Amino acid sequence: MEWRGGKVRYLDQTLLPAVESYVETSDYRAVAEAIRALRVRGAPAIGIAAAMGAALAAYESRNLPPAARSAATEAAIDLLLATRPTAVNLHHALARVRARLAAAGSDPAQDLLDEALALEREEETASGRIAAFGVGLLPRGADVLTHCNTGALATAGEGTALAVILAGWRNGIVRTVYATETRPLLQGARLTAWELLRAGVDATLITDGTAATVLSRGGVGAVIVGADRIAANGDTANKVGTLMLAVLAARCGVPFYVAAPCSTVDLRTPAGAMIPVEERDASEVTHIAGKRVAAEGIRVFAPAFDVTPAELITAIVTDLGVARPPFGESLVALLGGPSGGVGRAR
Amino acid sequence: MEWRGGKVRYLDQTLLPAVESYVETSDYRAVAEAIRALRVRGAPAIGIAAAMGAALAAYESRNLPPAARSAATEAAIDLLLATRPTAVNLHHALARVRARLAAAGSDPAQDLLDEALALEREEETASGRIAAFGVGLLPRGADVLTHCNTGALATAGEGTALAVILAGWRNGIVRTVYATETRPLLQGARLTAWELLRAGVDATLITDGTAATVLSRGGVGAVIVGADRIAANGDTANKVGTLMLAVLAARCGVPFYVAAPCSTVDLRTPAGAMIPVEERDASEVTHIAGKRVAAEGIRVFAPAFDVTPAELITAIVTDLGVARPPFGESLVALLGGPSGGVGRAR
Repeated sequence: MEWRGGKVRYLDQTLLPAVESYVETSDYRAVAEAIRALRVRGAPAIGIAAAMGAALAAYESRNLPPAARSAATEAAIDLLLATRPTAVNLHHALARVRARLAAAGSDPAQDLLDEALALEREEETASGRIAAFGVGLLPRGADVLTHCNTGALATAGEGTALAVILAGWRNGIVRTVYATETRPLLQGARLTAWELLRAGVDATLITDGTAATVLSRGGVGAVIVGADRIAANGDTANKVGTLMLAVLAARCGVPFYVAAPCSTVDLRTPAGAMIPVEERDASEVTHIAGKRVAAEGIRVFAPAFDVTPAELITAIVTDLGVARPPFGESLVALLGGPSGGVGRAR
Repeated sequence: MEWRGGKVRYLDQTLLPAVESYVETSDYRAVAEAIRALRVRGAPAIGIAAAMGAALAAYESRNLPPAARSAATEAAIDLLLATRPTAVNLHHALARVRARLAAAGSDPAQDLLDEALALEREEETASGRIAAFGVGLLPRGADVLTHCNTGALATAGEGTALAVILAGWRNGIVRTVYATETRPLLQGARLTAWELLRAGVDATLITDGTAATVLSRGGVGAVIVGADRIAANGDTANKVGTLMLAVLAARCGVPFYVAAPCSTVDLRTPAGAMIPVEERDASEVTHIAGKRVAAEGIRVFAPAFDVTPAELITAIVTDLGVARPPFGESLVALLGGPSGGVGRAR
């Protein structure tokens, strides 16, 4: 994702890896649609995209009278906020944008753009720090298993969980990476496999249900995943299928790590049960690559995320350090008080 | 599957539910290919198909001199036996066919056909008995979760696990059935969903990784699956993804049942570690409905089955009754001694 000449430029991830299609738009509504349709996805990335979308809205209303200008930008922020409910990065990013808008000077559009670009730089820095903190947790010579996509496509920089894995690979710590395909939208097969191959990492793709075989036969030294929202007690919402991996890892005695920037921690949500879990359209399960695969007429339950209870998480790797259980204390300590995570300084 | 006028007639399951294509063949090689390519699948069904294939081979060599005739049929049996390694029904069925061939009278082809048809009738009877024994295990008003396809398409009669579920539905015991889509070949989405809809059962399709959400939020009173081979100690090989469900069920306090005819029990295999697990071609994961979905060049690990340890299985429902732990004793008691399961009388 990039701000280029007054436009947001993004790679349409729904078409990868078959097609690398870059889209440029000056319309914040198109950015909202891109977030909703997962053309842009990954908790940190949608925060950045939404902030850039808000800047686009501010530019669009630049020539309106000040009151109308503010109202139009606020309405755009509301639209962007409503795109996806689970990833708290979206909320954090737009809360920052809203605060900046309220305090804006004579050129609110420029102010919002500055905020969006600052956010992007912060997430990029955060990615590097997560990698540095996380790599110390990986046992030397071990296989690592990951889920969904948490790389450069999902974030700024090299990602979250995938940034840790790439650092582990470069340092000769990681032997092989197992990537789950991640149904329904196959982010693992399409995006993570693609990123791992491009980075020259030894990688193996498995169906989600094959993780039980891989974990129970030994050799995997860590499961590491990203997060869409981490509650104050450490309960973590992440791509559906994550809870299954956490339960399997616990049974097999494999450490289970969550890697995410502090912008993903939501100290205002006390526990996982309070995290809203988005349900996606049935067609994401019944159709693959535009073709119906399921029996016609079948009802579908398609939550995009699940919530892994803190008790199954060995540690949470953030850009400010590694939180260990009890997370209720360690997360507050890392983030510097219950207001941390929103508008924090880094 | 049906024997019709000297030919084997089967429904090509790889094309379901989009296309209902029935294939008729008098060539045992085509039957072997159909088993290998999963056009015919399901442990009991491939046993029946292989036995019918052996009968086709015997008809083909009917006009050869007796010694050549036997050798040709034996060679065909070897070919059929090599199609798939995990489901022991194939071995049991062809062991019966081989014994019948050795003791054949003046018309070995007719003898083998009689044996194949007897096997089919036995599996049909077994299905009804499994349903009758299994339905007593389901808690009234509960949701049930199942994996892969274990219905009429996979067996004779109404199936194994699915026969239990259908009996539960007809008796007002089952409220809703959750069917996992079952990657990579989507037997749940394509076949189980189709069979449940045709039977008028209230059913919901989920991705495999969504089972953790469904099981952990409560309401599911039983997980019930089929089997491809049950070792003497109760360890059970079944479609990949089963182990994940068993681990989740144990964590959530949900009973986990395996339903299978005695022809799936292999008392000669002491434990799950000795069950050969077939690996399928990478393309079954990288391609869906003929279209590449995974990044080009990624390595794939694609076992067709996994092995669930006996400790995670609440009970094994067979046509001879319900086996409870310790299975090492209860299975032998049901099958009538260590030679049970092969050529047993029913």
